[in-house]
This record gives sequence, structure tokens and C-alpha cells, in this order.
Amino acid sequence: MEWKKIDQHLLSRRTLLAASGGLISGVILKTAANAMTVFSPTDPTKTIGRGSSAIGKRAPVEQLTRYVNRPTPSGESMCPIQDLVGIITPSDIHFERHHGGIPTIEPETYELLIHGMVERPMKFTLADLKRFPQRSRICFIECSGNGYSGYYKQGITEELSPQRLDGLLSTSEWTGMMLSTLFREVGVKPGAKWFLAEGSDAAVMTRSIPIEKAWDDAMIVFGQNGEAIRPEQGYPARLLLPGWEGNSQVKWIRRLELSDKPFMTREETSKYSDPLPDCTARLFSFVMDAKSIITFPSFPYVLPEKGWWEIQGFAWSGRGKIIRVEVSTDGGRNWYRAELQEPVLSKCQTRFRIPWNWNGRKSILMSRAIDETGYIQPSYAQLEKVRGKGTSYHFNHIRAWKVEQDGRVLLGLNEMA
Amino acid sequence: MEWKKIDQHLLSRRTLLAASGGLISGVILKTAANAMTVFSPTDPTKTIGRGSSAIGKRAPVEQLTRYVNRPTPSGESMCPIQDLVGIITPSDIHFERHHGGIPTIEPETYELLIHGMVERPMKFTLADLKRFPQRSRICFIECSGNGYSGYYKQGITEELSPQRLDGLLSTSEWTGMMLSTLFREVGVKPGAKWFLAEGSDAAVMTRSIPIEKAWDDAMIVFGQNGEAIRPEQGYPARLLLPGWEGNSQVKWIRRLELSDKPFMTREETSKYSDPLPDCTARLFSFVMDAKSIITFPSFPYVLPEKGWWEIQGFAWSGRGKIIRVEVSTDGGRNWYRAELQEPVLSKCQTRFRIPWNWNGRKSILMSRAIDETGYIQPSYAQLEKVRGKGTSYHFNHIRAWKVEQDGRVLLGLNEMA
Repeated sequence: MEWKKIDQHLLSRRTLLAASGGLISGVILKTAANAMTVFSPTDPTKTIGRGSSAIGKRAPVEQLTRYVNRPTPSGESMCPIQDLVGIITPSDIHFERHHGGIPTIEPETYELLIHGMVERPMKFTLADLKRFPQRSRICFIECSGNGYSGYYKQGITEELSPQRLDGLLSTSEWTGMMLSTLFREVGVKPGAKWFLAEGSDAAVMTRSIPIEKAWDDAMIVFGQNGEAIRPEQGYPARLLLPGWEGNSQVKWIRRLELSDKPFMTREETSKYSDPLPDCTARLFSFVMDAKSIITFPSFPYVLPEKGWWEIQGFAWSGRGKIIRVEVSTDGGRNWYRAELQEPVLSKCQTRFRIPWNWNGRKSILMSRAIDETGYIQPSYAQLEKVRGKGTSYHFNHIRAWKVEQDGRVLLGLNEMA
Repeated sequence: MEWKKIDQHLLSRRTLLAASGGLISGVILKTAANAMTVFSPTDPTKTIGRGSSAIGKRAPVEQLTRYVNRPTPSGESMCPIQDLVGIITPSDIHFERHHGGIPTIEPETYELLIHGMVERPMKFTLADLKRFPQRSRICFIECSGNGYSGYYKQGITEELSPQRLDGLLSTSEWTGMMLSTLFREVGVKPGAKWFLAEGSDAAVMTRSIPIEKAWDDAMIVFGQNGEAIRPEQGYPARLLLPGWEGNSQVKWIRRLELSDKPFMTREETSKYSDPLPDCTARLFSFVMDAKSIITFPSFPYVLPEKGWWEIQGFAWSGRGKIIRVEVSTDGGRNWYRAELQEPVLSKCQTRFRIPWNWNGRKSILMSRAIDETGYIQPSYAQLEKVRGKGTSYHFNHIRAWKVEQDGRVLLGLNEMA
């Protein structure tokens, strides 16, 4: 193995690519003969492979799984975000958070009822819904409790992966129709300001949603990543509220009731509201603020050697597009602008990347996201000052990873300050 | 069932959405009591559902499968494009076209060799490759023989689905690194104009690629829709040449050899070249020209009644973005501009949609795509005039569907003229 190293510690892509002779990885072959002998022992070209099939499977060594935090009907499983590439989450590992388990719903008997302050109370079968003008949108869904363990630093160690820290996050291409189309169909009465969204699960999940979201970008979706929505994500149809907390995007949606006021359900008073230090509470804290996390390097990766590595991660904001992600390798003293992967979509996971020449010394990696409203992902101290220690939701403070001299990467529990 | 119908035959989205009382589908409920009785018989809220799991499965009634046209090692399977929503193709039903079957390659032993007219012949393990700056790109791959049966109108009937007609088409989010990055790493010698791409399959698939494509947008990809590339699509790595014919995007890539001329392999002389009427041949006809197909309504759908339906389909071009899709419901006499689903991405399947108020009479549906170069998808006659009857590739002429009075939808074999 002949590795050529670059000694400069530079976070500049231009410098990296312009570096003459600055090889990143790979083996230089001394002779052409050398080159031609690499295939001898287990040459796959000597064996006829299997033919086409009706449905494909992952390569045996490339199995991905969710981390089942609680397998109970009111439980959750977390997406292996550190193992993903690109922005699309494979549908079968989209995170789960259920309150009464996954109901079994036959598509033939499915109905969506819209009533309350409407001109024409109506019900729609799945076939009815699919006749409306459709839309697709690639956007993230994040549980508003995502990051709980990292905020409270309890019951966890520094040996925590992005999956275990922030795996209640996934992105899909969702397909359905604009909720505004359905609301025009039933005719919303003047004075209607809110609607109740009710699910068909055993928890009968109910949330009150401001009607402005329906006129903006809310959807009823029946499709996920090209096919029917998965049972765990609301089959046959769910409410999609791009950028808002996952819980409000009611799965297995069966009823929408329009009203002039919110319904004050358990899931927005007892739960999914944020007690504040001044003894008031944030109610209806729907929007997921800008957040980011470095997914490479992160626990459990071990960097085998110093030299060039690409720091990678996700950034996302419920308020629109990510316009900038900054990365620090020295615990927040210096920040460098990362590259964003096009297309950068509104309210969608966005990949950021920046080359890093690790000098082999202990390093603290951090990222902070900035969205198109100018909002900057806060530090732990900034978030704690505003939200206090009573909250259970919306933990979007800056995450930290420690790279040890031996290459191990650990969650920077104490470095998140 | 009380259906309200709209009588106007209008292809205007604005008109549709502005239509007061112009209900598309659904049942109007006479009383509120009526509304509250819809859940009685099989109410899923009365049963606790199953909890979270490590990996999800499709809903039992929502199984998708490829159509295996030939299960042999040199065969293909076709994607059910009429059943898809959005633009992403689920990875396990991405179309297949193999020439020596799917090789079994262990990622630990995988190597990519780059040699020939380079300064430093090098080989790269999969781990080596993953250290380079990465990129993701959502783009289509289409077999250049896609649509063969429709062009020759042989051995097929009007009872042919989009899957059977044009199912050698899929779109994924691909992740890897720019080939230009690797070429800079090895140092391309002056005078190198082509490179050979060689696969690890039993066919030892080899194609010559102009080096300009490497400096433009060619990639080596190891990721597909968020995870490792599937075995059928080239695990652990393939060549990605956005917009070019599928065969040239060599799967299971193991060797790139730079040269000052093309290698004139079997797969670009005997195959994947187009004999022309004047007894010359199109060699190296890489680019997939603009094409479109209506996927709804299409065979085997049967429209249950007249009224509003949304015509939907895909358009794509190997030369860049689709800028316009036009739809006709009268066999090409009148054309209406369809809506394009954002984001419209370069060299990517693009969804088009247009509302249609079917009057219950026989109708001929067609679509034609126009890309950013100004290229217009040709009629059958236009294509046949240029390409003749000796070609086996690049069948991008306008497709037609017949809607019969009884609502059946059939492939317009004779209407494709």
C-alpha cells in the first residue's frame, strides 16, 4: 500500500481538488502487468450470474434496520441515518412513532370524512381521493421528540450513533393531493379557523391544525417513494404537513372536522406542548426549527488514519430551504462553509459536505444550519436558556462529535454546550 | 351515491379548480348523523395494532413486481411504471437488463482499476472510493431498446400496459463520486479521448465512452435511493452516465482504460448501434432523446364513468430538463399544455398532469415532450423516416392510448402513426 498524504490542514474543496499529486486514497500500481493481475483469485466473470426476477433484494451484507427503541404499540423505531447516502430514506426503514400500534386498514373500506364548518359534509373513498389533481413533494418528517436523550444527557453514553441520537427523522417523496383541493370541494364556511385531524389507530390520534396550513402546503398523501404509503407511515393515507412536527401529520387519517377554534386534545395539551421556565407553555409548537447533524464521521466509525476525509451530514428546516451549513473541527472556534447537495428543497433533508484533512489529533466536530428565514441553529446553552429543563420536544441544538487520537469517534456529550 | 358531474369538456386546471360546485368525486352526506355512522362495522380504532419493527413491509394488497420478460442470464425485467406515483422508482422494482446475469461480488474484495493513458495507474477498493468527495443525483436510466415491441408492432396486442411497452425505465437517487475526481487522481495523459468501461459480469460488458462525458457529469456510484446500490443495478458500484443509454452505464464496474480511440467492442458494433435506411449506421448513439408516456389512464385501467380524470405520465430527456409536455385527447389534432411536477430535474423522469373531463366517447390520448434544447418528441412516422426498419434502439416516438366508450383503455397500436 502506497499512500501519499497531504500535510496541510485545509477545509477548502478548491484546494483539495487543485492539489497536484494530492492523492486521497487508492493504490498506485508500478507496472501494467501489476494492473492486469488484480482479478485472478475470485473473478466473478467466470461464473454465469442469476437472471432477472420479479422483485429485488438487498445485497446480503447490506442489510439496514431500524433501531427498535420500544416495540410496544406506543413505541418507536429509529432510522439508521449514519448509514444512508443521498436524501431519500428507503421506505422500509423510515422511522416509526406510534401511539396505538399500526392499524390494519383495507383500502376498499377506507373512507375520509370531512365535516364540521363546511358547506357539504363529504366522505371520500381511496378511489375518490385518487381522482383529484395530484402532487408529489420530497420533504422530511421528524418526530418533535427527536434528540431527547441528547438534550437530557441521561441514560446514554458517548457511544451513541446518529441513529440513536436523532433517528426519528426520515425523508420521502410523498404523493397525494393538496388538502386545499379537498377543502374547496367541501366548501369551507366563513369563520372556520382550525380543523381536527383524526387517525384510525387505536390511540385515535387527534390534533388541531390551523386552517392556514391547509391553504398553504398541507396534503393528504397515499404515495411514498414511488409506491403506496407503507403501513407504518399511515397506509392507506396520512396527513402531510411539510416542516411540522411528525405527530401533527396524523397517520391513517379518517376524519377532518372544521371548527372556529382548536379542539385542545390530549396530544396538544398534555403532550406535544412545551413547558417553559416562566411557568407558561408553548402550545401548538408545530414548526421544526433548523437543525443539522454530522453523520460521517460519527460513532461507531473509527478513522483508520489521518489524512483527507469528507465530513458529511444532514441539515433541514421546517421553515423552508437550508441556505448555509457551517462546520467546525475545533469545537466551535472556527467555522467553515460546507457544500450543499443540489437540489436543495424546501422543508427537506439537505446533504452537506466538506473535505477535512485530519491531522491525527483530537478534534471536536460540529455543524450548524441556517435557513432561508435567517434562523441559525442554536447552541445547547442558547436553547436551554429559552426552553429550560421541562420541555420534551424540539431539541435542535448543535450536535458535537469527538474524534480521538486513535480515530474513534464518540458523541460529544459534554462538548454540546 | 350522489355524484355531481361537470359537463364541460375542458383541459384547464384553472377552470377545474375555479368551478363552483364542480365536484370531482366523493359522497355528499345529508346529515351530520350520517357522517358519524361511517365507522361502525370494522373500526380499526377498536384493536391495538402491532408495534415498531426493525424493517417494514408493503401493505399486503400493495405488492409491486417487475414483469420478467426473460429470466435468463441475458434477459430483462420491466418496471410497473403505470403503478408508480412521484418520480422515484422503488429500488427493488428498478428494471433489469443483464447480459451474463448478476455477479456475486464481495465488497471487501471489490477493486476498480484505472489504467491506460494515465500518469499513475491505480486501483481503488470500495473504502478507497468512499473517501472521495461525494455527490448525489436523481436521474433516469433507460434501456436503449425500450419500446421495441411498440415500434415493430409485432407479437403484441392492444392489451399492453406501460410496463410491457416501456418498462425498461427507472429513476433513482444515485450517490457516488464524479468520475472526473478519479481521473484527476490518476492523471489523464494528453491525447486520451476515450475510455473503456468494463463490468465484472460473466458477459464482461465493455463499452467505449468519450472522455468528455467524464469531464461533464459521469459518476461512479455505490448508492441508490439512500442505501447501497442493489445487486441488479451493479453492486457494489456502477458507471453512471446521466441521460445516456442504460447499456453504456456499465454495472459492476471493475476497470476503466483510457485510450486515444474507441475500442470497438461487440456491444457497440454488433449491438447498440443503429443501422440506417441509407445503409450507414449510427455508432455511439449514446443520448436518450426526449420521450414521454401517459401512464394514467392506460391499459389495463377501465374508467368507470365519464367526468373529471387526471391524465398523468412521465416525460424525460437525456439532453437536460423537460420544459414542456403537451397532451392530446383527440389523436393529435389539438394539444394542451400539461403541468410539470416540481422539482423538474435535468435528465430525470418528470411527472406531467392535466385534468380531463371525459365525455364518455372514444378518445385517443397522446403526449409529446419538449426538452430544453428545443427537441420535440417525434411522431412514429417522423422517427421511422429517419431510422428505418433496421434499428433496434432509441424508440422515442409518441405513444397513443385509446379510451373506448365502455371505459376500457387500450394501447393505440394503429394510432401511433
